[in-house]
Amino acid sequence: MKDMNGLVIPTYDDMLAAHERIRPHVRLTPVRTSDYLNELAGCELFFKCENFQEPGAFKVRGATNAVFGLTEEQAKRGVATHSSGNHASCLSYAAMLRGIPCNVVMPRTAPQAKKDTVRRYGGVITECEPSTTSREATFAEVQARTGGDFVHPYNDPRVIAGQGTCSAEFMQQTGGLDIVVAPIGGGGMISGTCLTLATLAPETRVIAAEPEQADDAYRSFKAGHIIADDAPKTIADGLLVPLKDLTWHFVSNHVSEIFTASEQEIIDAMKLTWKHLRVVMEPSSAVPLAVVLKNRAAFRGKRVGIIITGGNVDLDKLPWMKG
Amino acid sequence: MKDMNGLVIPTYDDMLAAHERIRPHVRLTPVRTSDYLNELAGCELFFKCENFQEPGAFKVRGATNAVFGLTEEQAKRGVATHSSGNHASCLSYAAMLRGIPCNVVMPRTAPQAKKDTVRRYGGVITECEPSTTSREATFAEVQARTGGDFVHPYNDPRVIAGQGTCSAEFMQQTGGLDIVVAPIGGGGMISGTCLTLATLAPETRVIAAEPEQADDAYRSFKAGHIIADDAPKTIADGLLVPLKDLTWHFVSNHVSEIFTASEQEIIDAMKLTWKHLRVVMEPSSAVPLAVVLKNRAAFRGKRVGIIITGGNVDLDKLPWMKG
Repeated sequence: MKDMNGLVIPTYDDMLAAHERIRPHVRLTPVRTSDYLNELAGCELFFKCENFQEPGAFKVRGATNAVFGLTEEQAKRGVATHSSGNHASCLSYAAMLRGIPCNVVMPRTAPQAKKDTVRRYGGVITECEPSTTSREATFAEVQARTGGDFVHPYNDPRVIAGQGTCSAEFMQQTGGLDIVVAPIGGGGMISGTCLTLATLAPETRVIAAEPEQADDAYRSFKAGHIIADDAPKTIADGLLVPLKDLTWHFVSNHVSEIFTASEQEIIDAMKLTWKHLRVVMEPSSAVPLAVVLKNRAAFRGKRVGIIITGGNVDLDKLPWMKG
Repeated sequence: MKDMNGLVIPTYDDMLAAHERIRPHVRLTPVRTSDYLNELAGCELFFKCENFQEPGAFKVRGATNAVFGLTEEQAKRGVATHSSGNHASCLSYAAMLRGIPCNVVMPRTAPQAKKDTVRRYGGVITECEPSTTSREATFAEVQARTGGDFVHPYNDPRVIAGQGTCSAEFMQQTGGLDIVVAPIGGGGMISGTCLTLATLAPETRVIAAEPEQADDAYRSFKAGHIIADDAPKTIADGLLVPLKDLTWHFVSNHVSEIFTASEQEIIDAMKLTWKHLRVVMEPSSAVPLAVVLKNRAAFRGKRVGIIITGGNVDLDKLPWMKG
């Protein structure tokens, strides 16, 4: 870690250390290809299947790095976070692997399936109202009571170092890529990707993919400072959160471009992937393919890596189903 | 190949030769695992993802072996088959790879999507009426006209030797299995599995999984001779065809057991796999997991390999969708 004006930035060595730390606990996920999608996109696509992690998302990397990096003393008090998405289940999963407590603050309106998954992994849920004020107050109370180490879903150097391990594997598995495209929400995966590739493959460009209807990262990137949306609405529900100082550091310094896609483009890309890669991915994970298909000229003839970030979907409510 | 009373049986060496022949043209498909499904089933499950072949099914192995085994002379006249399923698209795909003609006789009632896929791979479709008489007459006419080499969907030693390559990879990737479970329709995959494991791992048991509503293989197995159903109806539409002499040879000599599953059990297993493996598989491919969950005692504590045979489904008509 290095300190930059009070901001603790993870380094390439932190990523390497994270990889050693988490290797026994996470999967070396496979890379999928499809001649059909290559032809359609006019470039050579490689899909890194992080949806194949046991809890179904790349977030298990950062969570596991944070959990297994705790001292014995701290581990006894466990970890705590607020999240209604994959970070909650992945942190619970990592804590379960180490056998330590995990407390999660979740809006009471979160889907029952998400709550069930956290509980299946032994996470203890404290419900809050679906507002920032209530979440912060509830979380402060939980943390004070349990002493759990706060593992932020993305604005945490341990988490970013963990997410960076995905690109290290990806480069090795593919033998090199011209471009890596990942979805951007809070920016954890994109930051980890930047962290790793800046050293490992500085010529590889990192492109972020964002829903048009939650395009705060795109607007931040263009404006040169963080802009947070009030209440974005998109089917890509893993990408609703805003950038924070640490992820902004990586995005502003290393991301080449941010492209956006409409809701329909995201749904079409999701269905294309299910059909031709035969892989179950979340709407958030379809945004990269959507932007590649929308900006073919920018990718033509290139070796393009796409990170399939997660595969937790409600199979009873697929976006192309009627009603 | 060895001749047994006029029946030409593929040997282990034929499988090895097939593997060398097809290796440049098919994928070494990954093996997926899920702690969740292991716990649910009470055994250690390994899923071989043949749905990740480019045309979405294991049948590309046998088809590629047949196509690339042709002499130059025969190759000019191409190949021909009758099929309304994965064999049609896989044979077209293999023929496209070699750059030779592929003629397919298909009932005019076959789904448009299946016809589109065959044509995308350059296959030429001749439609027949949906009856055995019409199919046989139409196929005879097509074969006489084109001189194409007939590649039967399963009752062909080249096809069985090709399908057998899947288990060879599977054993190497997993380091050994106690049981391999595959769906049974005409018996091509099961026969290839028996062929390979009888030599490579004779202690590994081969179990076939069949829909209750198309249980002709089960009844044949119990009766000791082939029983063909008149018009079976099951959601597992890859498994409607009957055993033939060559596949019966392997089934009767080497299969340990045939278990059956109901339509609802198949649908439940399919949804479980989509949710927890995050893999898109056909209903036919869900029958093995369905029978494992139904017969837990037979699998308890074992290392169980399941072959996910294919991933071509109509995403607009998933069996758990209403109406």
